[in-house]
Amino acid sequence: METKLTEIGSSKMFGGYNKRYKHFSPTLGCSMNFHIYFPPSSSPNQKFPQIVLGNNGHVGTVLYWLSGLTCTDENFIAKSGAQRAASHEALALIAMDTSPRGLNVEGEADSWDFGVGAGFYLNAKQEKWKNWRMYDYVVKELPELLKENFPELDTARASISGHSMGGHGALTIYLKNLDKYKGDADKFLHEQLMPNKFEEACRKVNAPLLLRIQPGYDHSYYFIATFIDDHISHHAQALKL
Amino acid sequence: METKLTEIGSSKMFGGYNKRYKHFSPTLGCSMNFHIYFPPSSSPNQKFPQIVLGNNGHVGTVLYWLSGLTCTDENFIAKSGAQRAASHEALALIAMDTSPRGLNVEGEADSWDFGVGAGFYLNAKQEKWKNWRMYDYVVKELPELLKENFPELDTARASISGHSMGGHGALTIYLKNLDKYKGDADKFLHEQLMPNKFEEACRKVNAPLLLRIQPGYDHSYYFIATFIDDHISHHAQALKL
Repeated sequence: METKLTEIGSSKMFGGYNKRYKHFSPTLGCSMNFHIYFPPSSSPNQKFPQIVLGNNGHVGTVLYWLSGLTCTDENFIAKSGAQRAASHEALALIAMDTSPRGLNVEGEADSWDFGVGAGFYLNAKQEKWKNWRMYDYVVKELPELLKENFPELDTARASISGHSMGGHGALTIYLKNLDKYKGDADKFLHEQLMPNKFEEACRKVNAPLLLRIQPGYDHSYYFIATFIDDHISHHAQALKL
Repeated sequence: METKLTEIGSSKMFGGYNKRYKHFSPTLGCSMNFHIYFPPSSSPNQKFPQIVLGNNGHVGTVLYWLSGLTCTDENFIAKSGAQRAASHEALALIAMDTSPRGLNVEGEADSWDFGVGAGFYLNAKQEKWKNWRMYDYVVKELPELLKENFPELDTARASISGHSMGGHGALTIYLKNLDKYKGDADKFLHEQLMPNKFEEACRKVNAPLLLRIQPGYDHSYYFIATFIDDHISHHAQALKL
């Protein structure tokens, strides 16, 4: 059964398109939105020779972006400016929502860091929160959905990244699925993400880690926008390996 | 009398700062917010040798950005990505609101293109709309306010630009004040802005005009973000003349 996707928005940006889709998610039991930024497609004069998008045998690589608490699928697309580098690197960006919505579970919206807008990219264990299966949504349902609907995207060559709750999510998803994702999660750090603990763990197992601390920046999209080019470029390089 | 400004927000971006200020505007008779993006200040290793910001005898040039209908002082700062190029060019960005707010004039919010969020950068003629004096606010009050409060900004070397209602505003303000603004207004075009009429008028008086039409782009900030670097660079060059 092919899952029905409805295009609900399209805006040209840096030669490509921000497209927004709506679909019913069997994993989460509700309607969900997500965005794809498609970099410019192939043409004889295209600036992106390494990857050709479209139905011509070649496919484009994919970067999943996991957003932070309170975000929807829109914040990253509207505020990060990541499309510039994604256009240049011929990388498709996938930005999904941060939790199921519209289920009216009692207490789901009582706190900004629990329930709606706060899926933490995990599968909940309690019956009451059975719809909160964002891990399965991101790792299983969404890649399948993209594979079915967008043959021009190479979902087998994917990278994953995120900010705050999404940075933590990207890191844990990557570490649990080393076969699925080629790049590694960006370390947009937060006190609650305990970078020192991570650094310590990496040191114990001799895993390479480049930990960048950027003084003076806050936790906002202004911070993301400032450094996003480095991150997109990093993932694009990793996907070429 | 020095006008009291209150800083109500500050976020680091591309080495500089987005700062938000609140003040009472005598011109508009209400409290107003505006943003300044300050590019990185001087240091021995700074990448911006042409202009040194700070209290050391040198000053930074200024670009006023006039936003479109329904916008506040936030949209351009949050979504345009203009700070990257402004940081590189050492250009300060000034983004103001689009109308007086909070006056509760009967009917002020009945329509998206009249009243609140729709000041059109004009001085209203009718008594009922006496607070709608955005022309005076942008051309007179705001530059004075900046001069008083930010000696590091060279308000005598200013350029002006905008999008949609703001593109029209920038163009008309520039044409009425050729001595005040060094650059020219960007032509972010809109059917209502009638670019063909403008082209015709320029041709009549032999005024040079480079009219760029970008196919496929809509009227959104995705369009602005795609082309803003060219515009910032254009204004920076004009300010160096």
